[in-house]
Amino acid sequence: MNRNVWDIRYLFEPDGVAIIGASTDSSKIGHTIVDNIMASGYRGKIYPINPRGGDLNGIEIRTTIKDPDIGNVDVAVLSIPSKFVYEAVKECGEKGVKFLVIITSGFSEVGNSSEEKRIVEYATDHGMRVLGPNIFGIYSANADMNATFGSKNVLKGNVGIITQSGALGIAMIGKTAIEGIGLSAMISLGNKSDLDESDMMEYLLKDDNTKIIMCYIEGVQNGERFLETLSRITRRKPVIVIKSGRSKRGAMAAASHTGSLAGSDKVFDKVMRQAGVIRADTLDEAFNWCKFLSQSPLPRGENVVIVTNGGGIGVLATDACEKYELKLLDDVRLMEETYGDATPEFGSVKNPVDITGGARAGDYDKALGAGLDKEGIDAVLSLYCETSTLNVENLVKMIEENHHRYNMKGKPIVFSLVGGEKVARAIETLTEKGIPIYGDVDEAVQVLGALYRFFRFRSEPAEAVAEVKLDIGKVRGMIKRVKDDERTFLLADEAKELMKVVGVTMPRSKVARNLDEAVRYSNEIGYPLVMKVVSRDIIHKSDAGGVALDLENEEEIIDAYQAIMTSCRAHDPNARIEGVEVCEMVKKGVETIIGARQDNNFGPVIMFGMGGIYVEVLKDVSFRSVPITRTEITRMIKETKAYPLLLGVRGEEKKDIDGVIDTIIRLGSLISTCREITDIEINPLIAYDQGKGVKALDVRVLLSKEKGV
Amino acid sequence: MNRNVWDIRYLFEPDGVAIIGASTDSSKIGHTIVDNIMASGYRGKIYPINPRGGDLNGIEIRTTIKDPDIGNVDVAVLSIPSKFVYEAVKECGEKGVKFLVIITSGFSEVGNSSEEKRIVEYATDHGMRVLGPNIFGIYSANADMNATFGSKNVLKGNVGIITQSGALGIAMIGKTAIEGIGLSAMISLGNKSDLDESDMMEYLLKDDNTKIIMCYIEGVQNGERFLETLSRITRRKPVIVIKSGRSKRGAMAAASHTGSLAGSDKVFDKVMRQAGVIRADTLDEAFNWCKFLSQSPLPRGENVVIVTNGGGIGVLATDACEKYELKLLDDVRLMEETYGDATPEFGSVKNPVDITGGARAGDYDKALGAGLDKEGIDAVLSLYCETSTLNVENLVKMIEENHHRYNMKGKPIVFSLVGGEKVARAIETLTEKGIPIYGDVDEAVQVLGALYRFFRFRSEPAEAVAEVKLDIGKVRGMIKRVKDDERTFLLADEAKELMKVVGVTMPRSKVARNLDEAVRYSNEIGYPLVMKVVSRDIIHKSDAGGVALDLENEEEIIDAYQAIMTSCRAHDPNARIEGVEVCEMVKKGVETIIGARQDNNFGPVIMFGMGGIYVEVLKDVSFRSVPITRTEITRMIKETKAYPLLLGVRGEEKKDIDGVIDTIIRLGSLISTCREITDIEINPLIAYDQGKGVKALDVRVLLSKEKGV
Repeated sequence: MNRNVWDIRYLFEPDGVAIIGASTDSSKIGHTIVDNIMASGYRGKIYPINPRGGDLNGIEIRTTIKDPDIGNVDVAVLSIPSKFVYEAVKECGEKGVKFLVIITSGFSEVGNSSEEKRIVEYATDHGMRVLGPNIFGIYSANADMNATFGSKNVLKGNVGIITQSGALGIAMIGKTAIEGIGLSAMISLGNKSDLDESDMMEYLLKDDNTKIIMCYIEGVQNGERFLETLSRITRRKPVIVIKSGRSKRGAMAAASHTGSLAGSDKVFDKVMRQAGVIRADTLDEAFNWCKFLSQSPLPRGENVVIVTNGGGIGVLATDACEKYELKLLDDVRLMEETYGDATPEFGSVKNPVDITGGARAGDYDKALGAGLDKEGIDAVLSLYCETSTLNVENLVKMIEENHHRYNMKGKPIVFSLVGGEKVARAIETLTEKGIPIYGDVDEAVQVLGALYRFFRFRSEPAEAVAEVKLDIGKVRGMIKRVKDDERTFLLADEAKELMKVVGVTMPRSKVARNLDEAVRYSNEIGYPLVMKVVSRDIIHKSDAGGVALDLENEEEIIDAYQAIMTSCRAHDPNARIEGVEVCEMVKKGVETIIGARQDNNFGPVIMFGMGGIYVEVLKDVSFRSVPITRTEITRMIKETKAYPLLLGVRGEEKKDIDGVIDTIIRLGSLISTCREITDIEINPLIAYDQGKGVKALDVRVLLSKEKGV
Repeated sequence: MNRNVWDIRYLFEPDGVAIIGASTDSSKIGHTIVDNIMASGYRGKIYPINPRGGDLNGIEIRTTIKDPDIGNVDVAVLSIPSKFVYEAVKECGEKGVKFLVIITSGFSEVGNSSEEKRIVEYATDHGMRVLGPNIFGIYSANADMNATFGSKNVLKGNVGIITQSGALGIAMIGKTAIEGIGLSAMISLGNKSDLDESDMMEYLLKDDNTKIIMCYIEGVQNGERFLETLSRITRRKPVIVIKSGRSKRGAMAAASHTGSLAGSDKVFDKVMRQAGVIRADTLDEAFNWCKFLSQSPLPRGENVVIVTNGGGIGVLATDACEKYELKLLDDVRLMEETYGDATPEFGSVKNPVDITGGARAGDYDKALGAGLDKEGIDAVLSLYCETSTLNVENLVKMIEENHHRYNMKGKPIVFSLVGGEKVARAIETLTEKGIPIYGDVDEAVQVLGALYRFFRFRSEPAEAVAEVKLDIGKVRGMIKRVKDDERTFLLADEAKELMKVVGVTMPRSKVARNLDEAVRYSNEIGYPLVMKVVSRDIIHKSDAGGVALDLENEEEIIDAYQAIMTSCRAHDPNARIEGVEVCEMVKKGVETIIGARQDNNFGPVIMFGMGGIYVEVLKDVSFRSVPITRTEITRMIKETKAYPLLLGVRGEEKKDIDGVIDTIIRLGSLISTCREITDIEINPLIAYDQGKGVKALDVRVLLSKEKGV
């Protein structure tokens, strides 16, 4: 294994590039790639390879990469039939190639995984990394290298795009060019046989010419690594992700509440937000954001001002500000002081500032100028609604100048123009000049909202991960015993023992094997009591009649014991019943649910929400990945309606939120340390008044089906 | 009062139009309007009026409308300073003008309501109706009359637009023209001093040239009339509404749960949906929908098929189908049978049908042709992702032809093209040809979603309104007694009496004035019992310690009575305590809340949701307006999480949903008949097992503050 021998920089800034499958036939991909590399101004050596030899755009086509006249080759692009790829890779190995860019399709995406695996194994053993197969290539601005078979027309700039879909990549190269979005890189990932989004991000993170990263993903293979990579990027550069395949078809079947509530998209969404990713719903959204975020300075504070020439679009923008979580400045004195002189008689200096339908370019200059230097005004939305007196040239000039002076001043500004033909012309001219401009008010507010999401995330103080040290040896011992017993779930007393090790408080209880023990233990613990059946075959105890509440004395214990046995046997005559658990009757409090599980994509995740028997009905839960900070745990709690209950409603005391957080930290530490545990669920976790702690009433623990620990 | 004397047709198809304030100065609005009317090809008589006289585009400017040479004037457009409007209106009255279109601003929108009122009163008394003031005019395709000061460039077509904001109207005229959206009418409403959206809709409903209606609204004044008008339109023509001013600033303060949960936008949203309106969030959305819905045939069923040349956009479209509630055909055999021959080897005949990146125009023709005649395929999304082999001309031709053959066949089809410069050129060409085309997959799916919303609404069988006949005389008598007592709320026993008249079951109970009575009544009703304080000064009884539960015998009654008195006096020493209510202890069931109130905008509305003490935390409620059908009530119930509880979760019996519906009908009938009742709230209404009925545990009734009944 020679993994990570080569710095990823060689892929993006190669010394020499060989194109295996270069063709003199201009309809072939291997032709287009050579063409594109040359057209894009690549300054390194280009080696077209084809057994037939010949000449391509004045460069000699070599018959083999082993040709001794070929110098150093950092990247080999392969565009040959799939059956020839393996042999070509072997030759690349001999040549000392560092990165293989395999355009060819016909591998794992059509079920041919073994050949793909064979290629990657060979490459890995010989110190090569593989991009692809089944991709449309790579574009790197730092090398002026367009090694794709997409459009020649690539706009150089500071947006790095990573795409899992090659077809979409071609469309995106085209689309970015006409939208005026400059690219620092565009990488197609294809089957991700070796290199994946995390590897590409490593480069884009370090690349000073990349200001923003956009990612089109259909699925994440190594989610934990992806999160780790993101954690080093998202405070420095905005990362915009479009994730497709979010529909229910893909939601996984799972054995627990936590699992069934964790529709994979919900987890993805929460985890991406936690990682500081700005998620887009559509391609247009993502492009709009890229364009604006790649150019705009960051705000210094939260106060946004709207300047408009029409009430209608002002109201629409106000609504959109609420939708996209922007705060409109409402300091009436500051508004008056700033915009008083710039607003005509029938206008308004309130936010939105209405400079009326009579406003000309000069009036916008005045109003926008007023806010430019003003402390306390942090970002401006400048809206224009077509009027009968529009002069396109003046409007374009006004926007261009104000765009530049705001950028110089380090203050974000967004422009929106709503109207017909003349407005369309202005938008076209401004787009050609590379200035972000939006034909719909909603879009303009949305891009500013995206900027603020990045701003807020990076403004958060760095915080250590919240975790506790567990006696992991003890936990492993317990798990081993369960596995030795060929079970993948813990019995009630085992779960209780585990919680004790983890430091989660449960009600006092004891498992009685027979009626005599039940009576004895009951007297030890004290009344009132609850009695529950203990059986590996009965998962939903209430449904089986396996639970009796509020038992006040010995006599009631005896009755309850007999009733439970009768019911459970009626429910499932074959159920193995180990006994009953007698348990202190707990006082009422706020019922919450805490879950922890190994997510298919992201590994350890935790869940919190409203607990009790209606969890599946209320579906009021949220998710985060582990490791996690205390602030994120608090945020997760606040996303649920359990939060107002914990704060105390209708005159109740505030509940022990610290106790809830502490329990979440403990389960998070457990699930991330012991990967054999697939699911833990506490439901309900009762939260008592502040300082009075929490109690886990019922705990379910599932283990992975794999043998051994 | 001469209201409704003139048919609204005279406004849209006037015989003669006078423009009061017509000007030879081309910078004046009064000039532009005459210009626009002439340019649009209006065939009736045009009378420019200005005291200075002169000549405008070859037409003599009359000095007064009273000029006897002026023939019949159906519409007078006024564009003169506000101080002259009243006198001009008087002259119009003398002339026998039917409709006044008052462009002039400076009335109620700047606080000058009295002058506006004076004008409208005069007009009304003299048989004239008023559009405006503060508007940009009216365009009517039927009269080829562009009586606005917006763009000359209006595209004639079948979309009728009504806008409250004049500025936005100008922008919209321009925008529709460049987007290829043809207008049948565009009306600016301004201050709505007389004519409002309902009046305009009456015309657009009857106008055969109007296929679709779009409305930009900031607020609804006469919501009940608006709903009544909509009820006659929305099954025949799609109505798209953009409502701005939805942010929280506008939410009203109110005295009850129903009120505070009824953030006005939530009610607006639900009521519009109930009325069959398709609500748009942004201008772009609304325009996209207008364009598509004004051209597309209606589907015959729910089965949608995606045809794509790329997996990436196929997945994005699949996600979007879920988001916009479209059903993808999943009959594998039908898909195979239809698309088998049209799909190449590495493609997919599953939905989305992937005809692969190699697909040319001919391949699209083949695939789209395969679905064209097929029974069971009801609508098609045709997606194209730019490839290196794109031929724009062929693509445009393919889309144009398939657009027409699908339209001829009466089957909806939407096209989306994603890519760069060549794609942009194709989109431009298609837009010029008037063919709906979308550069983003999400938009394409969204417009089809809008079409399906209309399709589903109009496919619903017509249904009678659900209501019951109440003994309204008795109700009014009760309300009068409360008002005579100078109260605006009912005491517990009064509310109970009211519920008896309305037919809502409450637990057996009696109000005791003293301890002796409490004991006596308790023995009559039977144990266990609940005791509650009765006091006009104590609204939240639990919080005041005014409630005791589960009283088992006489002794406990005595204790509870004393405890309640002590607590309530401690809570509020000045509270007038009328006594206590002893009440049968009710069994557990599903707790729901039912509310009914007079909404500021829409009059009688009803609310349903999860009940109990956490209503304000859960906020799990929905709304509808009254009158209402049983189907809509059921739909309202299904929108809440109370619904799965009523169905029975975790092995519980199904609850008495009919009883819940019946109670909603009864409260709806009450609130719509007795407008003096502003709020009724039953919380909780306990639903028992099916057939076992429901019980209203607590009822609050508030009356309007106006004197008299």
